[in-house]
Amino acid sequence: MTINALVFDAYGTLYDVQSVAAVTEDAFPGYGDIITQIWRIKQLEYSWLRSLMRRYEDFSVITKEALAYTIRVLGLKHDTATFERIMDKYLHLDLYPDARATLAALKGRKLAILSNGSSNMLEALVKNSGLDRVLDATISIDSRRIFKPAPDVYTLIEARLGVRPAEVLFVSSNPWDACGAKAFGLNVAWIERVTPEAMALACTKSDVVTPLTLFKALRTQMDELGVTPDHRIHALSELPGLVAHS
Amino acid sequence: MTINALVFDAYGTLYDVQSVAAVTEDAFPGYGDIITQIWRIKQLEYSWLRSLMRRYEDFSVITKEALAYTIRVLGLKHDTATFERIMDKYLHLDLYPDARATLAALKGRKLAILSNGSSNMLEALVKNSGLDRVLDATISIDSRRIFKPAPDVYTLIEARLGVRPAEVLFVSSNPWDACGAKAFGLNVAWIERVTPEAMALACTKSDVVTPLTLFKALRTQMDELGVTPDHRIHALSELPGLVAHS
Repeated sequence: MTINALVFDAYGTLYDVQSVAAVTEDAFPGYGDIITQIWRIKQLEYSWLRSLMRRYEDFSVITKEALAYTIRVLGLKHDTATFERIMDKYLHLDLYPDARATLAALKGRKLAILSNGSSNMLEALVKNSGLDRVLDATISIDSRRIFKPAPDVYTLIEARLGVRPAEVLFVSSNPWDACGAKAFGLNVAWIERVTPEAMALACTKSDVVTPLTLFKALRTQMDELGVTPDHRIHALSELPGLVAHS
Repeated sequence: MTINALVFDAYGTLYDVQSVAAVTEDAFPGYGDIITQIWRIKQLEYSWLRSLMRRYEDFSVITKEALAYTIRVLGLKHDTATFERIMDKYLHLDLYPDARATLAALKGRKLAILSNGSSNMLEALVKNSGLDRVLDATISIDSRRIFKPAPDVYTLIEARLGVRPAEVLFVSSNPWDACGAKAFGLNVAWIERVTPEAMALACTKSDVVTPLTLFKALRTQMDELGVTPDHRIHALSELPGLVAHS
């Protein structure tokens, strides 16, 4: 295969959604980690449910609704300023440590993001992290009013970059996103950040689990969706080598 | 409103999906509860993801795939007989204690199930629990090849029972299902089996949580999907009084 474009998922792939935990812990001491986990799970659920219900709202609305759910369910109270401070972190997420160097090493090919995030959220996030200087495009699904993994949103890559699916390597750490992209017909590299061995070890004490362990059990392992991504890597930094040999 | 038909969700509403835990604990001592929780969450996720991916498989396939995921992620090994024994419990789920008496008390109105389950699964489940003697219809979504909460599946109620949405009370303990039915246009009673107060209390120790607590935090509280069901009840047994006063 000839790879002429690499297209990255944003949340969880280039940007670490767990980096919200510092802010949530500061706002709600003792609850920082569990807020982050429930929030992320509900954010994804709402994106899928609203897509199926045909009640699309953009990802900033869904992200707020998921956070409101999380705070309420935990029996916590918040004021507007606290809520906004947590939400603001979504526009300043940390990059994974190897993200910047990886993108630099891939220079020469088209580089883009395809994300569930709304155009406004993504524009701010990409600018705040300086990735606007290395990316050729930041593509939001919002023009299609449906979320990943609906096939329709993956068509945006060819529409925006002018590169056929066979020449695209799509990169995601989210198993359901990797499967959706593969089912659509892209070449896909899935980032397995937690090995099966580490996962099994974390679950040895199964009667009580940390929120992070349960999150990992739900979100980091390859799903059973009848689709297998082309490549399994363990970090973004493996990508330059992967496409050099392709 | 005049309610001429009551239509029930099956899994989690009439039938207790937690009743699988006895079988999973027997098969995998120490892991019974966490298996049940991850299994259920993945089963739902796969129903939504496959619907969005347009890769429908029936609910028995999805349920098997979700169980396979769960066992793998926990680092456990299984043989075919164990796997089949666990799966078989899905055809013999326990009814909630008040289910039978509630249905008997509602006699005279049309009574039905509308479920994500495949026709084969539902037929066995309903027969094994004896509900075939009190239900007028057991409706599977499988003819539509998409899962709840897609609006299309809720049209099956009028198609099969000949009762208009305005005359139907749809009953579900699953918040996303209650919201989907309401968004479609049915009258909806949502069963809140875990009060917000009990939920918040269970989350007081937030650094370690039991699998059941996290499951409750994700599955038992009303979701933020921009829709509010008409009625909030706490047990099936409240239904005869509710419709008598309607």
